[in-house]
Order: sequence, then C-alpha cells, then structure tokens
Amino acid sequence: MTIEEKFMALGVKNAPGQEVRQKNIDLKNVLTVDIPEGKAVDFSHGDVDAFPPIPGSEDLWSDGFSLGGCQAYTEYRGALDIRQGLAERLGLFTGKPINADSELIITPGTQGALFLALGSTVSNGTKVAIIEPDYFANRKLVHFMGGEIVPIPLSFLGNQNGPDLNILEKAFKDGTKVFVFSTPNNPTGQVYSREAINSICVLASKYDVTVIVDQLYSRMLFSGEEYTHLRSCNNAPENLITIMGPSKTESLSGYRLGVAFGTSTLIDRMERLQAIVSLRAAGYNQAVLRTWLQEPEGWLEDRIAQHEKIRDDILKIFNKANLKTATPQAGSYLFTELPPLITEYSSFIALLRQQAQITVTPGTEFAPSYDNFIRLNFSQDYHAAISAAQRIVLMIDKYKI
Amino acid sequence: MTIEEKFMALGVKNAPGQEVRQKNIDLKNVLTVDIPEGKAVDFSHGDVDAFPPIPGSEDLWSDGFSLGGCQAYTEYRGALDIRQGLAERLGLFTGKPINADSELIITPGTQGALFLALGSTVSNGTKVAIIEPDYFANRKLVHFMGGEIVPIPLSFLGNQNGPDLNILEKAFKDGTKVFVFSTPNNPTGQVYSREAINSICVLASKYDVTVIVDQLYSRMLFSGEEYTHLRSCNNAPENLITIMGPSKTESLSGYRLGVAFGTSTLIDRMERLQAIVSLRAAGYNQAVLRTWLQEPEGWLEDRIAQHEKIRDDILKIFNKANLKTATPQAGSYLFTELPPLITEYSSFIALLRQQAQITVTPGTEFAPSYDNFIRLNFSQDYHAAISAAQRIVLMIDKYKI
Repeated sequence: MTIEEKFMALGVKNAPGQEVRQKNIDLKNVLTVDIPEGKAVDFSHGDVDAFPPIPGSEDLWSDGFSLGGCQAYTEYRGALDIRQGLAERLGLFTGKPINADSELIITPGTQGALFLALGSTVSNGTKVAIIEPDYFANRKLVHFMGGEIVPIPLSFLGNQNGPDLNILEKAFKDGTKVFVFSTPNNPTGQVYSREAINSICVLASKYDVTVIVDQLYSRMLFSGEEYTHLRSCNNAPENLITIMGPSKTESLSGYRLGVAFGTSTLIDRMERLQAIVSLRAAGYNQAVLRTWLQEPEGWLEDRIAQHEKIRDDILKIFNKANLKTATPQAGSYLFTELPPLITEYSSFIALLRQQAQITVTPGTEFAPSYDNFIRLNFSQDYHAAISAAQRIVLMIDKYKI
Repeated sequence: MTIEEKFMALGVKNAPGQEVRQKNIDLKNVLTVDIPEGKAVDFSHGDVDAFPPIPGSEDLWSDGFSLGGCQAYTEYRGALDIRQGLAERLGLFTGKPINADSELIITPGTQGALFLALGSTVSNGTKVAIIEPDYFANRKLVHFMGGEIVPIPLSFLGNQNGPDLNILEKAFKDGTKVFVFSTPNNPTGQVYSREAINSICVLASKYDVTVIVDQLYSRMLFSGEEYTHLRSCNNAPENLITIMGPSKTESLSGYRLGVAFGTSTLIDRMERLQAIVSLRAAGYNQAVLRTWLQEPEGWLEDRIAQHEKIRDDILKIFNKANLKTATPQAGSYLFTELPPLITEYSSFIALLRQQAQITVTPGTEFAPSYDNFIRLNFSQDYHAAISAAQRIVLMIDKYKI
C-alpha cells in the first residue's frame, strides 16, 4: 500500500465538525422546499453552549496555570497527583482498583487515548475485530497502523440486540489479536448487556485477545438502565485498556482530555508513543480533571434528566413518522434509518444543511454499509433540537420516494 | 519486527522531564563528594517560572473559553480566524506568503506537528535522512512509522560547521525520500548557513525529496547571527513543511501549541491524521496563539538579551574548565562534551542529579554515538543556572580520570 492509498482512506470531510471543508457538492434532485424557519442545529457534535462545562472548570484551569512550570511540564502520562485522584475515583466508578503510578495515563482527549491504545497493539497485519456500526475512528486507526479489520455485526433495531458473538468467536479463532469497541455504542447508544460483556471476557481470555473498550459515555446512563464495566468482571482478559474522558457528558471537549487505564505494560507503551505524538495532554488543562467524577451534588443527575427528555421527545417525533431509531440506553446519540429517497443519501444530508440548517453525520462514517442512516448528537438546546427533529421529518417527507 | 521490538526502541526514561520514572539505577564508582549546596536545576527543559509565558496569555485563554462552542470545536486544522492571523505573521517572518485555508495547520505542540509531518510522508521502508546529532524524537518517529534512518553527520565543534552535504547527496541519490532536520539545531544551537540551506534546496529539488524543517527556536536569534528560512529560497523543494511553535522562546509549553505550514497536499494529509490522533489542538488553548508573533514591543528583544547573557556566562565557565561546547547561535541549548570519567557517562548523569541536584539530558538521545555529551537547556533563572554550571564543573573534576 502506498502512502497515498493509506491517506485516501482517512478522509475527514464527513467527520463531525468538518463539513465546512466540503466544497462543490454535487446535489441530485434538488426540490423547492417550504421548510419553516428554525435555528441552525449542528447535530454532528454536542452543543457546549447549551450544556456548558462542569461549573468552575475555568477556575481550576487558572489554578493550574498559576502553578507554573510543574503544571506545564508534567510526566508524559500526566501529573502524578492528578492521576492519583483519578485512579481512586475511576476505580470506584468501574468497580476495580487502579494503580495511579503504573495503570493510568492522561491523554489529549479520548481520541488520543484510542490512538495510543491501538498504536500500542496494532502493527502491520494485526487482525482487529471492529463492531459495525461503531465509532468511525476505530476503523481509520486500524487502517493507519497497517492492521486488518475483521467486522463484527451489531444488532440494534430488534429485540435481540448485541454483538454477534458467534462471528466474534470465529474471528478470535482465526487469529484476531485485538478487539476494540464502544459501550455505550456510538452511534446507537446501546449499552452492552452483562451477558454480552461476560461472553466477551470469556472469549478474549480463551483466545488471548487484547480488548480496548471505549466507555466514553458510560456516565450518561438513562433511567432503568444497568451498566457493566468489563474490567470489573471476574474473568476480564489479561490485556485490557478502558478508555474514558470528560469530553461529552461533562462538556469539557474544549480542553482535550481523556484517560486510559488498564494493563501496565500497555500503559507503558502508550506513554512511549505519547512521547513522540504530542508529549502530553496540555499541562494546564490537566488541572481541570480535578473536578471530574466529583462534580457538585445533583449536577450529573440533572444533566442526565435533561438529555433523557430530549431523547424521549425526539424519539416520539421520529416514531410517529415511522423512522426506525434505536432507543439509546446511554449517551446522546440517535441513529436513525432513512427511507428510500429520490436523491442520494449523501445529497440529502447536504440538503438538510442547505435547506433546513441541520447538520447530521452520515451512517457511512460508522460502517461502510450504513449509507441509509444518519447520526444525531442530541446534546443540544431542547427547543432547537425538537424543532430541528420536526424539520428532518418534513425534509424526509419531501424527498422520500 | 514485532510490536514489542518496535516499542523497545521508543524508551522515554531518558527523555526530558521523564527522569522521575528512572528506578533502580546501577551507579558505578560513586565517590563521596563535597559539592556546595545549590538550588536544584532541571536543565532538561526550560523553566517557565524563570521565563514566564507571553504577558496576558491567560487572559486570551479566558476570552477563548468565553467564546464557548465555536472555540471548543474548531476544524481539525484549527480555528480559521486564528489561522488567518498566524498565516499573515508567519508569512512575514519567514519571507513568503502562506495561504491560511490550505497551507497551515495548528497542532498540539511542535511535537504534534513533527508527528503529523512524518506520519504523512513516511511508511514502511521509506528512507529518511536524519542529522546526527538532532532532536531525539526524529529518529523515534521514523522508527515508529517503519521507515529507515539514513544518518547525516553534523559538524559543530570546529571551524567548518554544518551538515555533511556530500553524504546528504549520496543519501538522496540512494533513494532517500524524506529529510527532516532542525535549524537552529537541537542540541547544538547551530543555525544552518545560507549556503547550507541553499544546497539543501538544490539537492532536495534535484532528487525530489520531501523536506521537513523544524524551526522551533528560530526567533531566539542571538546578536550578530543571520537566519535563513528555507521556504523563502528561490529553489525551495516542492514538498516542504516548516514547523514552528510558541513552546520555547515564548514559554507557552503548558498550552501544547504548534503550527506546520507548507505544501497543501501534505497539510491536508496531516489534518486527516490529526483527526485520528487527537482531533485538534485543545480548542480554548488555540486562542492563545492570537498573541504569538505580535508580543508587546521590546518583549522578544529583552528575552533574547537575557538568554544571551546566560549563554555567555555558562560558556565562560565551561571554556575555562576546558569543556568543549559549541557556541549556540540561537535557541537555549548547550551541547557539552564530557572528558573521560571513572564512571559510565549514564551513571555520571544520574550522579549529577543525586549529588549536585542537576538534571541534564544525555547525548545519546540525539544520536547513539554521543554518549559522552550532555545537553543543557539554559532557559533558567540566571543565578541558579550559573551556580549549577559551576557545580557541573566541580563534579566533572571529581569524576574525571
């Protein structure tokens, strides 16, 4: 593979927030539509103006800045005292202790954590099991490292939801060395059941597979749902990295902070890689992690309740319009199936932006075959989100065959 | 090469700031020394408490934070309005215009820029010319990407200083595709002459070699010195990336900010890679770049003068003790040759820390053969630096054969 081919597969123009770089889009079958005016909504990522950062994060940042050199130049894996606090709180949250010295690294966002984890476990020819659909960067990362993607289907629209464990076992038998997935799943919001997580543990241990589990959204758990932390299972695999971060639920995205914790030999490799990738998460920003997982009382519950209401009300609108959508058990994503349209799906997505001021992420970002799906991050102003959901229904109505 | 072997070569325990992770060092021939007490000095990186960030940087950060979502979620290549200001000022500084839309990317530090530049040009088997000595991460990056290092010697202690252009041409003839180097050179502080830069341009154009030039320290230019920007030469190569950043001279290291500018196809690849590495330089931090290259009047001149005085006075101490040291023409590094010692050089460096409270970086970080050299970043409090330089001389005196 030439380096040109390698980068062909790393397109970013459809990635969330990058739509501004799309030029000369060829729109097919544009209709004159009469969509009511509404506030522009960018569903490609959460709106941190509607859901602002954890209260006081900027003061913690200033305190970090005031510390000067010791906060600017931390170890590559992050400042020790901050890691100590995080290790304790994350250990409690995930149900198993974490050694702050050897088992945790602070990264530039969860994206940084994923890059380091895959860069530390995947090289030329490594077979990597990837859920379809799942977070778009997983596939791109495997591709960049020279690995080989082994797709594992996820069911999410029926009654028997979950990853196909038979196909997963076959992949492990056939030499897959790494399994990376997100739970809650991005884009569907599915939380893997206790049974699914236990089966993954058993299989990964049996076949000696390294597991990288992205739990970015695990704190935004809706009422009545149960979350199983893979690392707390009795039979968790020996090589395991768990990834979390305060970018989403906590709206700290502007700081680029994430953490990875797990097997110390892998954390050690990740630090070596971090040393040549970007040295460390920005020093002053690391100080903001002091508020994470110990926010003001009631703050998280309130944030979850607000998101749950948006979820429920958009789902009502979509269900009424017969748009198939998985019910997210956690997180803030809706993954919605589009009916057959008179225009290409990619054109429809561009038209949503031009004619209804709505940005969504195409399903193809999450698996090549999901071109008839769109993903919405509903962490938005409530009224803007509801109005935009209604406009999406009107647009689909106009353009459907 | 297995992934274990790949990571063996990416050790970080000798990297600047990582000394805290060195455990169980086997010290050979420890003497009882009588070194006068002195303030601990960490010469492995600059002291941002002694030389604080550009005045007002934290206010610019707060302004960025107040902007909310649009500053948190910029394009992966950075916020357009910030890129526009940077492109104008960097174009003036380097002597050639830069297109803000297509030719510039904001990165998480210059380390991030180097990673993206090499990741975008080096893959399995790519031959990469590397200066010896030069910034340690260059070699590690080539190694991680699966490239092959072609070493090019740099003379720096005599009268005929500069890269060996004959060996460079031979390397280009023999299929080297990428040439990466720093000017001013890290660790020697050598500024490549106009003649050397012109020759590099001619050779790179003739053999179609991509050039990545790290100009991180080019603003800290001492009196009487002249700096040649490669990109402003008439015969600059078609594929060229210039890297700069406000981490050093400007002490903005705690923000992790850098920039790369040059050939748009390469900048485009770098953005694709950034999308899977860490998305973007932390959004709020990008706002601090608004002050860069337009600092308060006299600020830069004053900072240069203060560093020049430290350079001159340490050089006097080292010269008097017959320690061979290149005179840095720019930047804040001193690269000093140690005489034969009764202990291993690595042990001596550990002893400097234990017995004289002085941290330096071993020469082996800059090329395998430079084990008898140490690098000092002299961007330190003046009195602490002078006292520490005197203690280094005393320690060498004790331990020399």
